[in-house]
Amino acid sequence: MNNGHEISDSARAMHAEPAPVTVIGLGLMGQALAGAFLRAGHPTTVWNRTASKADRLVAEGARLAPTAGDALRAGPLAVVCLTDYAAVRELLGANEDALAGTTLVNLTSGDSAQAREAARWAKKLGARYLDGAIMAIPSAIGTADAVVLHSGPAPDFAAHEPTLAALGTVTHLGTDHGLAALYDVAGLAMMWSVLNAWLQGTALLRTAGVDAAAYAPFARQIAAGVAEWLPGYAEQIDGGSFPAEVSALETDARAMAHMVEESEAAGVNAELPRLIQSMAARAIAAGHGAEQYPVLIEEFSRPGVPDTGQ
Amino acid sequence: MNNGHEISDSARAMHAEPAPVTVIGLGLMGQALAGAFLRAGHPTTVWNRTASKADRLVAEGARLAPTAGDALRAGPLAVVCLTDYAAVRELLGANEDALAGTTLVNLTSGDSAQAREAARWAKKLGARYLDGAIMAIPSAIGTADAVVLHSGPAPDFAAHEPTLAALGTVTHLGTDHGLAALYDVAGLAMMWSVLNAWLQGTALLRTAGVDAAAYAPFARQIAAGVAEWLPGYAEQIDGGSFPAEVSALETDARAMAHMVEESEAAGVNAELPRLIQSMAARAIAAGHGAEQYPVLIEEFSRPGVPDTGQ
Repeated sequence: MNNGHEISDSARAMHAEPAPVTVIGLGLMGQALAGAFLRAGHPTTVWNRTASKADRLVAEGARLAPTAGDALRAGPLAVVCLTDYAAVRELLGANEDALAGTTLVNLTSGDSAQAREAARWAKKLGARYLDGAIMAIPSAIGTADAVVLHSGPAPDFAAHEPTLAALGTVTHLGTDHGLAALYDVAGLAMMWSVLNAWLQGTALLRTAGVDAAAYAPFARQIAAGVAEWLPGYAEQIDGGSFPAEVSALETDARAMAHMVEESEAAGVNAELPRLIQSMAARAIAAGHGAEQYPVLIEEFSRPGVPDTGQ
Repeated sequence: MNNGHEISDSARAMHAEPAPVTVIGLGLMGQALAGAFLRAGHPTTVWNRTASKADRLVAEGARLAPTAGDALRAGPLAVVCLTDYAAVRELLGANEDALAGTTLVNLTSGDSAQAREAARWAKKLGARYLDGAIMAIPSAIGTADAVVLHSGPAPDFAAHEPTLAALGTVTHLGTDHGLAALYDVAGLAMMWSVLNAWLQGTALLRTAGVDAAAYAPFARQIAAGVAEWLPGYAEQIDGGSFPAEVSALETDARAMAHMVEESEAAGVNAELPRLIQSMAARAIAAGHGAEQYPVLIEEFSRPGVPDTGQ
């Protein structure tokens, strides 16, 4: 029943006729995904182990499939969002006969190794497989603020992009199924790093009576400004050459010492400043003191010694 | 000779006639400062222990004072940029009789305690005193990209802002002379945190064959996006209430575990991810698991235990 999906999907997209889609797993995120497909006019089939989770969606027009196998057979595209990869494997493993020719888009949270393993396993069962990561909270799904990352074969993404676009800002990262999980984790590291640096500055300035609202616009400006440097700095990394056009690591190190001292003198936490200092100190010890900051890619690319808390 | 400076400065500003200014200390940064004043048309007196450092500036129209005392007496405003605060104190201490009524703007790198001490000392000698921090490299001085922070009495900043504006984007942070150093350090923590998070993500993605240039735009988008949250999150801190409107810390912790595992599995450095995880784990252990990320201000505001490298 899945023959000719790509042709019919393309035809639907050209005529802006929303394609059918299945959503399996109706936790908070799964419900948000199904709701976004419904609002975009896609005939939406849903399934969840506890059927009552589908009540609100059925009231909004979703079709509740009686079994997971029936849900998988309902159309060319099944979006899966379960608790973890073990749950995905258990559920789909019990419905192997329903997978041939289906395209699975697995938005379950997991790591890159799990994504690559799931892709191998889906291929063996005859399913097309895309792995994805949702960089958004459920309430943002269906808006441009919801970034949904996909990785796997480009033609499979292209075939279903018109449908997936109902979820938010959807992106295809590359063929390697692990990429969505890796970009997700990299993005989270950036998110928490910006928040932690802001908290560090806020904690420091509160010791001088500056409230968080007064400091926040300054922190925002610095973060947004530094973000603009990244594409240029990336060229140094890809080129493997780090001339100190802006500042040498040795010069940075003196300001890092001030940063650690201020934090310690103010009695606030100094672990983040000390980590910044220790990564740079290692690069300087490795002979890179006259080079520019992105040379630290060498330190970030190796496991490194655990911090001994000195 | 310094009587009536504020009136004459105001008059000059109104008539857009550049006021005279003195620059003491002609290292790379001091030369850049003097050059920016000259280009903006300010009659500029310079002094440096090694007089030859003034050669280029004199060729561009600066007046080289024969002594530091003469330089300090040359006008209402003296911008000082030396190696450290000890050098400032040594130089000005030898010229106490030239300080009465002068406004010193000390842009020497130092910490907030040094700034506050210098302010007390300048006051005793009858000088007006502003402490400053330069968030720019020498080549940016004189452009809007050069942010120069000032702290100390607001009227002293206001009186000389038309002159100081020749240096770049100048800001007055507040009366506490330590603020410029604290904002500087807070801004640097943000700068290096954004760079480190980007390096972490770049290192991780390079293990999957993604080059730095391909990842950089994604990192830029996340950093700039998260920066926009800060003013809203600041309200939670100032209000002392952290409802989990977006996400609870316990939920974040599961994604943090993925982040650490991915870094370890990929064989890249995991110290930054582990620091993020450990700060959150402490807040959860303190009973804040159902609250939102900015509740970590409590952890960032206390010294904390040194990381034992577990």
